[in-house]
Amino acid sequence: MSLNLQYEDIGKEFVQQYYAIFDDPANRENVINFYNATDSFMTFEGNQIQGAPKILEKVQSLSFQKIARVITTVDSQPTFDGGVLIIVLGRLKCDDDPPHAFSQIFLLKPNGGSLFVAHDIFRLNIHNSA
Amino acid sequence: MSLNLQYEDIGKEFVQQYYAIFDDPANRENVINFYNATDSFMTFEGNQIQGAPKILEKVQSLSFQKIARVITTVDSQPTFDGGVLIIVLGRLKCDDDPPHAFSQIFLLKPNGGSLFVAHDIFRLNIHNSA
Repeated sequence: MSLNLQYEDIGKEFVQQYYAIFDDPANRENVINFYNATDSFMTFEGNQIQGAPKILEKVQSLSFQKIARVITTVDSQPTFDGGVLIIVLGRLKCDDDPPHAFSQIFLLKPNGGSLFVAHDIFRLNIHNSA
Repeated sequence: MSLNLQYEDIGKEFVQQYYAIFDDPANRENVINFYNATDSFMTFEGNQIQGAPKILEKVQSLSFQKIARVITTVDSQPTFDGGVLIIVLGRLKCDDDPPHAFSQIFLLKPNGGSLFVAHDIFRLNIHNSA
């Protein structure tokens, strides 16, 4: 396969679509449709998980309901297998928690005619004050 | 190829090695050895560049000398082609500028017996105050 020249649009559309589902507590579990049963990796605040069933468990275990999210930047690059690498920087606020900056990367890989999330790494940007 | 089970160590060692070179103004240009002549992508604060010669130009154009850097977290995942996906969160201070948080991702890909930086995306974490 070759470079997907639509990578910029794909990145922006994916991010919008993914967070629209994730940030809606009634809909959140449906993000699982973006992942592969066995080949997807998620690292959520340092916890490493592999495969859609375990990723679903993780998503279901999240205790917050509402998420208010503001996206600051989305940078995308095409990969030579036809996928797209995305990094999102933004801020979010869960329920009544204080707002936090976050960074999340997604590596989308082609599978048949569509793309799935092969890699997902999420971190709140909490730095030591030292 | 298959998963490289040393991904965690490779990620940490790469990050240490890369920034030791990048943060030393006398040595900075040597980071170019981590990139491929044609197949490496860099996105630096939204500017997209491809291939080692253009990446070198970009590195040479950076006006700061000293960088003081503190790494907060390094998360790595193995990719199915034997590569490693890395996200670094930290803070840095260039010369007399104020300190900033940053996020940087590297996707290392195998080439013969070694790994090169196929993808590099860097962003200072500067969010609107709105």
